[in-house]
This record gives sequence, structure tokens and C-alpha cells, in this order.
Amino acid sequence: MDRVYLDYAATTPCDPEVMAAMQPFFYERFGNASSPHFFGRRARKAMEDAREELAGFIGAKPEEIVFTSGATEANNLAILGTARALKPKGRHLIIGAIEHHSILEPARQLAKEGYQITYVPPDPTGIISPFEIQKALQSDTILVAVGHANNEIGAIEPIEDIGYLCREAKIYLLTDIAQTIGHIPVDVSTLRADFASLSAHKFYGPQGVGALFMRKGVTCGPWLLGGDQERGRRASTQNVAGTVGMAKAVGLCRNRMDQEAGIQQKLRDELIDAVLSGFAGVVLNGPASNRLPNNAHFSFPNTDGEELVARLDLAGVACSVGSACTSGQLEPSHVLKAIGLSDRMALGSLRVTLGRWSSRADSARFIQQLKIIDPCKKK
Amino acid sequence: MDRVYLDYAATTPCDPEVMAAMQPFFYERFGNASSPHFFGRRARKAMEDAREELAGFIGAKPEEIVFTSGATEANNLAILGTARALKPKGRHLIIGAIEHHSILEPARQLAKEGYQITYVPPDPTGIISPFEIQKALQSDTILVAVGHANNEIGAIEPIEDIGYLCREAKIYLLTDIAQTIGHIPVDVSTLRADFASLSAHKFYGPQGVGALFMRKGVTCGPWLLGGDQERGRRASTQNVAGTVGMAKAVGLCRNRMDQEAGIQQKLRDELIDAVLSGFAGVVLNGPASNRLPNNAHFSFPNTDGEELVARLDLAGVACSVGSACTSGQLEPSHVLKAIGLSDRMALGSLRVTLGRWSSRADSARFIQQLKIIDPCKKK
Repeated sequence: MDRVYLDYAATTPCDPEVMAAMQPFFYERFGNASSPHFFGRRARKAMEDAREELAGFIGAKPEEIVFTSGATEANNLAILGTARALKPKGRHLIIGAIEHHSILEPARQLAKEGYQITYVPPDPTGIISPFEIQKALQSDTILVAVGHANNEIGAIEPIEDIGYLCREAKIYLLTDIAQTIGHIPVDVSTLRADFASLSAHKFYGPQGVGALFMRKGVTCGPWLLGGDQERGRRASTQNVAGTVGMAKAVGLCRNRMDQEAGIQQKLRDELIDAVLSGFAGVVLNGPASNRLPNNAHFSFPNTDGEELVARLDLAGVACSVGSACTSGQLEPSHVLKAIGLSDRMALGSLRVTLGRWSSRADSARFIQQLKIIDPCKKK
Repeated sequence: MDRVYLDYAATTPCDPEVMAAMQPFFYERFGNASSPHFFGRRARKAMEDAREELAGFIGAKPEEIVFTSGATEANNLAILGTARALKPKGRHLIIGAIEHHSILEPARQLAKEGYQITYVPPDPTGIISPFEIQKALQSDTILVAVGHANNEIGAIEPIEDIGYLCREAKIYLLTDIAQTIGHIPVDVSTLRADFASLSAHKFYGPQGVGALFMRKGVTCGPWLLGGDQERGRRASTQNVAGTVGMAKAVGLCRNRMDQEAGIQQKLRDELIDAVLSGFAGVVLNGPASNRLPNNAHFSFPNTDGEELVARLDLAGVACSVGSACTSGQLEPSHVLKAIGLSDRMALGSLRVTLGRWSSRADSARFIQQLKIIDPCKKK
């Protein structure tokens, strides 16, 4: 069956140019980047070039980039590493209520260790107000974590303003840019972020590689122990091909992002119009503007979202109810609960995310199959 | 310049067949293994097949394999995860004095947290005696960690016997198999190990992917937090292409290991003979038998090993002084100190490790260049 992929927020295919860039580093140009000989220096050079490319793309310095296995590791490192290192200074963290679980779970772990966590709710469109962050600030607050854009409903958060007040209060700001890098402009200086986490596989790079931006001079304990790699902040033989691939993915996005975002947004807007006008009772979750250009997220009343996804899948169309990291859970999404959806609406959710290879034919196929399934029909 | 690579213990090139096996999973067969739709199920199937292949190769069950970013992460997870989970039961760990830093550093971290660590020294050939482990056992010992083979001097440890006494004493045994898997037979049941750590890039798989074997029922806290991947033991979108590549590397080793080990051992023995007979005062470190088939490790008196490696590199031959993870350190290796070498001999060390593509011409080139450099000449 010819299949349509509309779940780019879960993972993207590697761009063929990314694969081509990685290819030589598996065999012809292989090496351990810590080895002092020719093979090692060659690998190290490729990796440091990759670091420079990534850093430049997000307005960071190369030495502020720590390569990791992905955004989950980066988020764990930033939250646990910072909180434990700053324990003498304070034990209060402010976390967006709609953060990814790789932020929420480490925060819960810290709560068990005696830290105090304030979860800041979003408004009904998913936007976290800087004013709400400000209200939550305490004299012992050490870290604020709010993602640049929400992975389910696509809300782009006012990180610049949150960053401004964090900087005023001399509190670290962590922002998860996994959903935004390569899709909309990201500059850690403009955002005033001290930490930013990302995964290559969300912007046409390989799985298993990502990075944490750590602003120069920040206090954050080391993560993996046992080697001097990544300036002692993350031991482990570096994934040279993976970092080269991530850098190539950055380079492609640098050139194409504006154009791609425009195309996807137009296609996405047409898709939203078709769904909202074609099905009774359906609602769009997340903001109308300030939204990721490739994200559409709906709730269908009296519909089981998991079943809807399964039926679309049978018809050859891949969508999701929300985050892939939590698929199979029976609870309604914490994001949808936080924006005030009833269980009934939250459980009927459907996320459609477009990408580099999405076409009008793809969205037409989606609409066509959705009409056949007709989730809003009386049962 | 035509170059010779004799540092296979630092990293191996990816086998071209491994690259070919990974290739489709970057683009044509991509997917997030946690997604419930076709793309996700396809990715998950490939990953679970990979898990089965790896598990079968080391005598484990598929559900006992946790994919990680490499052996360093696996070692960190096993030591920190076990020690912290078993804190109420005991706070004493027994660690081989010649372990990799990804074992030693987490142990040092635990010492800071109030745990007691006993470092068990090897004999002068690098073998850690089960008797010495037995002497170190306490009523509150929770974990013994001894690598299957040492990464510098190639000593193969008597893990079966250490495993036997750990099992008798109901104490967990962690063994780092990064140097042995794919090179000599490894069976976690025969070894009686409860945990075993490995990296794909040490046996012709890709960098950035590895695994931890965790025997069913062992107590070990989760590592990365924030998703249900790897049965909740390691959150993060899985590296599907990487795990497929690792499994292909396993398959190749399964078929070729015995033959390759025989070829490498013969070549290695000739190389050792040529060095020992060609240079006055040079010694072979590590055991004569019970040694990795591809490993040779020498000490040249009155020689700076780093300089020797640099001069060989200039002549087109890549070797190392020891572990790539510690290159650039000015201290003599803890392994060489532990087997009783003087600083003078420890600092004059040279590790030569062979692999799949090593030839007699490679070792002849090494011997030829070593004779030109003549490290033992009077200065």
C-alpha cells in the first residue's frame, strides 16, 4: 500500500543528503575522536566542524554545545545536573505544566529528593504566560523550564520574555528546542536561554544523537562519568557519523527552513480549514497563530483518538494522538488536561504534523480517509 | 600517505555490510519505534529483531537487553542504578583496580555519597584472582564489577569463577564485555553475570549505540527519565538504524569470530616475537595466554609512549599508549601502575590491536617503522 506519513513531530526520515554526509564516517573516514593519531584527529576535526555548524545555527559558541544521545538525555542532564549542583543555593524549580515527560519526570525525581516544584499552567490555547512564571518565582528558585514549542499542540511559547525575567532574577532558563530547531528560527541569545535541548531526528538528522546547549559559565554537574570527552561533561566515545549527520541536517535547514515553513503552513492551514468545516463538533487545539507551521491538533467529540489513529493507519495514513513517547498510555494527555479539555475531548485527539516531503496529495488523502471513517458520526 | 590502523581496541570501522543493513532505516524504512502506526511498528519490529539477535549471541533473553548510547552509559547505569536502588541493603562495592574509567568514576561518585569501595588489584599479568574478590566480600557488599577483558593489556579475567562466588554470596556481578563481544565467545550464563555492558563500535558496528544486559529480576533504578522506552528503564527515542547496525555486526561476528580470532592471534604472536626479539629491554605487558587474540601491549624502557605513538603516526602507523578515553593525560595508566610497573616503564607503553582488516603487511610496516624510530636506543 502507498502510505502517507503525517507524523513528522514524532520523527522525521533522515534527509538523503544527511545520509550521504554521514556515509564516509562509518568506514573510509572512521576514527575514535579521542585518539591522538591521524584517524582520531580526522574524526575529531569532523566532529568539531559539526559542533561549530550547530552552534552557529542557534547563536551559541561551539564550546557551549555538549553532544548527547538526544533531547531526553539533554533534558535529564540539564535538570538533574543543575538542580543537584545548585542545591546549596536553592531547591525550587518552575516547570511548564505541558512540558515533555523528559522534563517532567526528572522534576518528579527531584521532588522525591526534597526539591519543590511549581508547575505553571498554560492558558487555554497552550501559551504559558511570562506573568504566571513571574508569580511563581521565589528567592530560592534555581531553574525555570519551558519548552520553545509544545510537541503536541504546537504552541510557540514566549521564551524571550520568560528569558528576560529569568535573567533579571538571575535564574537559569532551560528551553527544549526539539520541536523548533530547523522548523522556525531559534537563537539562544534572543531567547535568553541558559540551556537548550535538541534531537537530530526531529529535523531530518539521524536518531540517537542530539545536543545540550549550556551557556558558558553555567553550573551543571557532569552526566556520564568516565572519560574526558565533551570537556568532561559527558564521557563516552563520541558518535562521529551522527554528529556529522546532525550538522548536515542543520545546514539543509539553514537554507530551506523559511521556504519549507511557508509551504507547510499553507498546506496545514488548508488542512485545518477542511477538518473544521467538514466535521461537526471538532475543535482545533493550540493557538491560531504562534503555532508551529507544520502542526495541526484536533479533538473530535465522542471519539477514541487511539482508535481513530488505528483506523487511519489501516487506511494508509500515519498520524498520532500526541507524543510518540507516551503512546499506549490510557490516560488523557497531560497537555490537553492542562489547557482545560474535558476527558471526553482530550481522549478524542488527533495530531497531524507535516514535513519536508508532505504534499497536497498527502493532506487530500488524509481528509478523504477521515471522511470515510467519519469520527463525528452518531454511534 | 597509505596508512596502517593498529588501534582496533579504540574503535573499529563499521563493516560495509553493517552500513548496508542500516541504510534503509535512515530513510525508506524510517520510523519512531514508539509510534503505534505502520511506520512505528516497522521500526519497532526491526529494533526488536536486533534485540533478539544481540541477546541470542550472548546467551541472554531479549527482554534482558536495554539499548543505550554505548558501554559508558551502560556502566554508569548499572553501577549508579544498582547502588542507589540497593542502598537500604548495603553500601559496599568491589571494583577491579584496572577497570575502565566508566566503572571507576561512578564508583568514585558513590564513595562521595557514602558508599565504601574496595578496589581489588590484579596479579602482575593483569589477572584479577577470584580469591582476592572473595577476600573483599562483606556482608553489605551489593555489587562486584570486573571487566571480561582489560582494554589496555588484554588480560581475560576469570569471570566464570568470580561469577560463581558472587552467585553463592547473592551479590550482583557486572562485567564490561566491550572488549570481548565479537572477539571471543561471551555467554552471560556461563559467566554468571547479572549485568554486562557493550558498545557496537568495538566490533564493527556504529558509534553511539550499545547495550546493557540486565538479568531478569535484578534491582536497578531507571536511568534516563521521561518515556516508556526500553520497558521504562531508559527513556529516549530509540536509535533504530543503530540497533539494526549493531545486530548486523553481531551476525557477522557470529559467523567469523573463530576464524578471525585465529588469524589475528597468529599475526599478533608474530608481531610480539618480532618486537621482543628486536628491541632490548622491551617487555610484554599482560598475560601470555588468557589474552585477547588481537592485543599486544609493550613497555619500552626510557621511552615516552606518547612521543612514540606520535612518531609512528608521522610514519603512517596508528597505535596508542592505552585507552583512547584517557589520551592526553600525563599520568601513567592506572592499569599499568596496578600491575606493578614503575612510572618509567608505564610511561613507555605502546598498545597494538589488530582487527578484521589487519594484514601481515600492516604488522611488517609497524615493525619496520618501529626499527627506524628505535625507541630503545641510547639517548
